Amino acid sequence: MSKRKQRFLRALGRSSEAVLRGMEAAAERPARLGYFIDLMRSVYVEDCLPQLPEEPAGRPGVVGLYCVMAPEELVYAAGALPLRLCGGSYEASCAGDELAPRDACPVVKASLGSTVLGAPSLYALCDMVVVPTTCDAKRKMAEELSRHQNVRVLEVPHVKESEGARRQWLEQLYGFKSDLERLTGNRIGRRGLAQAIALLGRARHQARRLYELRQGDLPAVRGSEAALALHAFAYDRAESWCEAMTLLNDEIAQRQADGRSAFDRRAPRIMLAGAPPVFPNWKLPLLIEEMGGMLVTDESCIGDRYLYDPVGAVENTMEDMMVALASRYLMPCTCPSFAPNEDRLFRLRQAVADFRIEGVLYHVLKGCVIYDFELLRVEALMAELGVPVLRIETDYNPEDIEQLRTRVEAFVEMIREKKRKGVGR
Amino acid sequence: MSKRKQRFLRALGRSSEAVLRGMEAAAERPARLGYFIDLMRSVYVEDCLPQLPEEPAGRPGVVGLYCVMAPEELVYAAGALPLRLCGGSYEASCAGDELAPRDACPVVKASLGSTVLGAPSLYALCDMVVVPTTCDAKRKMAEELSRHQNVRVLEVPHVKESEGARRQWLEQLYGFKSDLERLTGNRIGRRGLAQAIALLGRARHQARRLYELRQGDLPAVRGSEAALALHAFAYDRAESWCEAMTLLNDEIAQRQADGRSAFDRRAPRIMLAGAPPVFPNWKLPLLIEEMGGMLVTDESCIGDRYLYDPVGAVENTMEDMMVALASRYLMPCTCPSFAPNEDRLFRLRQAVADFRIEGVLYHVLKGCVIYDFELLRVEALMAELGVPVLRIETDYNPEDIEQLRTRVEAFVEMIREKKRKGVGR
Repeated sequence: MSKRKQRFLRALGRSSEAVLRGMEAAAERPARLGYFIDLMRSVYVEDCLPQLPEEPAGRPGVVGLYCVMAPEELVYAAGALPLRLCGGSYEASCAGDELAPRDACPVVKASLGSTVLGAPSLYALCDMVVVPTTCDAKRKMAEELSRHQNVRVLEVPHVKESEGARRQWLEQLYGFKSDLERLTGNRIGRRGLAQAIALLGRARHQARRLYELRQGDLPAVRGSEAALALHAFAYDRAESWCEAMTLLNDEIAQRQADGRSAFDRRAPRIMLAGAPPVFPNWKLPLLIEEMGGMLVTDESCIGDRYLYDPVGAVENTMEDMMVALASRYLMPCTCPSFAPNEDRLFRLRQAVADFRIEGVLYHVLKGCVIYDFELLRVEALMAELGVPVLRIETDYNPEDIEQLRTRVEAFVEMIREKKRKGVGR
Repeated sequence: MSKRKQRFLRALGRSSEAVLRGMEAAAERPARLGYFIDLMRSVYVEDCLPQLPEEPAGRPGVVGLYCVMAPEELVYAAGALPLRLCGGSYEASCAGDELAPRDACPVVKASLGSTVLGAPSLYALCDMVVVPTTCDAKRKMAEELSRHQNVRVLEVPHVKESEGARRQWLEQLYGFKSDLERLTGNRIGRRGLAQAIALLGRARHQARRLYELRQGDLPAVRGSEAALALHAFAYDRAESWCEAMTLLNDEIAQRQADGRSAFDRRAPRIMLAGAPPVFPNWKLPLLIEEMGGMLVTDESCIGDRYLYDPVGAVENTMEDMMVALASRYLMPCTCPSFAPNEDRLFRLRQAVADFRIEGVLYHVLKGCVIYDFELLRVEALMAELGVPVLRIETDYNPEDIEQLRTRVEAFVEMIREKKRKGVGR
């Protein structure tokens, strides 16, 4: 292993361990969260995937996925393991600096950095890497990645309502299915696909349960914890994740019945909107909670949006299932790479109601212009709903943490004050 | 007219007039360039379109176009006038600042600014505005524009080689054709479309003639002048432009035969690559020439790429013509919003050979991450060809001109020195 790679893995391990240890030590943390903390530790600190045999011989095909448009059901049905590759590490983003323009977003820089280093090793394991054509940076990243990996570009329409685009999207998924069959040598049959849809359906059911438990007045799980558990799905087998999540949900339900929570009742209910926090960049979720905010939900594609929407297959014919997958992975997605993207405002309005949101922290990842473009519209919506918005622009560099702390603290305090006065009235 | 709009038009007029007057005063400028200078003056200083009747009654439909993917042939065949709206004014980009994120590119900011102000008035004249889904910023801009204008989004595939995408692109053009027919009340017939293709063909023939004349050892037209003449096509009727361009080309040919040129033979032959300079942002073309560089070509979508590629219709059936248009407006386009975009490297290699390029000035417009992404690959190509590259990142703000002047001067001097030594050997 090269010196550079060793140094990188040590640094990545250190910063990841710091986040995980902090979460382990948190008061009133659900015991069952341990599974997810351990999984993230395996991937980011110990650099191994516990669900994969160490010997290449017995290993299933591994399919790396970017964004959330490639149906994991197809990967499972082909007997392969899907892993999500969008990068969240500061160290990796530094390694990717020389391969991307200064103004590219850190997700893309980190992904490029980890790919070129082959570290953590899940980046080196992939037999195929799927990159949807979501945003400019992901498309240009795909071009760069294809020098190092077997890249499969998935053409995602940008106008969801277009009839022609939807048909073409369905064709893309049929093409993806064929490519998976070629890669693994396994035919994706009707029965196998139905089983995979059912498997992911069980995972989504548990994710949905978590989502609903967190709508309670005093959730027994922190937002940073829930996000970590959901994020872990990216590196786990769906079966194992599902079991662990069932136990976690049971525990949370029990704790809520017992009135146990890490939050105090007066804590402002905060939503983290905008760009996704990708592990180990846990800066904002932890900061909100450290400053006394009750992070109740997010709209992250690797958080609360990851496993939210169900697949609506009715008849279980191959065509019906493929159409249902195409619909599930396109229509409910509220990534700002789509235009128009009114769906997102609809979802946000719903989340504000369901979670009784009192403040929105709007995360702009440096270089992600599309989330920043939609800020105006989100601000207008939140003004209508009487919910204050704080825009935070940052990247993976930990150096701005003190400055962010001050701003988040002031924001949380402002809402707390508003609440106090409201109660007094 | 609002105070703000008046102030804006005065400022726009002042900065545009400064550019045009400088070009008028330039030594050895072809006399026939006057037509194009006057046209740009009408649009940007006097705020009128000389080719349009002042009274709305006799006015044809006006179709505003962004980027270069919507076939102007269809607009002409519908009896309407196409105008290009991509904005190049600093004043307009300031007006658009509040509607776009800080890191959005100035093209989008200027376009938004001019739309909201309705100034210059060509932005207020459009009966329909066509926005292709090229890059993130254009897509989000389309969403914003649709609050003010009748916006028609044109879905452009991002993977040119994809069979399904090409079919969908053809369908998009059929849809665009229907929309134009509905807008104007004119049916686009086989004959009308063939005539429009022939009309644009004549314009392209003249653009191509200019392109080839400039490959001479000592071109009788400056790069800044050629770019202005091509740019003027955006606001002219194709017939008038074609006549004026024929005369300009005749004059240039004559001057070259007479050995007259504004350049001296030892001036380094420079290509302006990367993002397009959009009028009145003539900073870089003028700077290259001021510093003694011979700007011989660019790869701008509103410059040398604008009218370069022919439409390959053979049979003149409606289907054949539509397929030819779909192909012409997609396949040769080397906008970095496409991925993969190997075609661009092929074109650049060709241009270096055809124009005997000795240096490439690579223009990165602040916020245009995709051109910056491709810099690495262009640098590698140019290193192979032995051509030095200077990356210049700037926006429409004139304040960095002194700093840019120093850098461009050093670059031109470096090539001149290299040339001198090469000759001495």
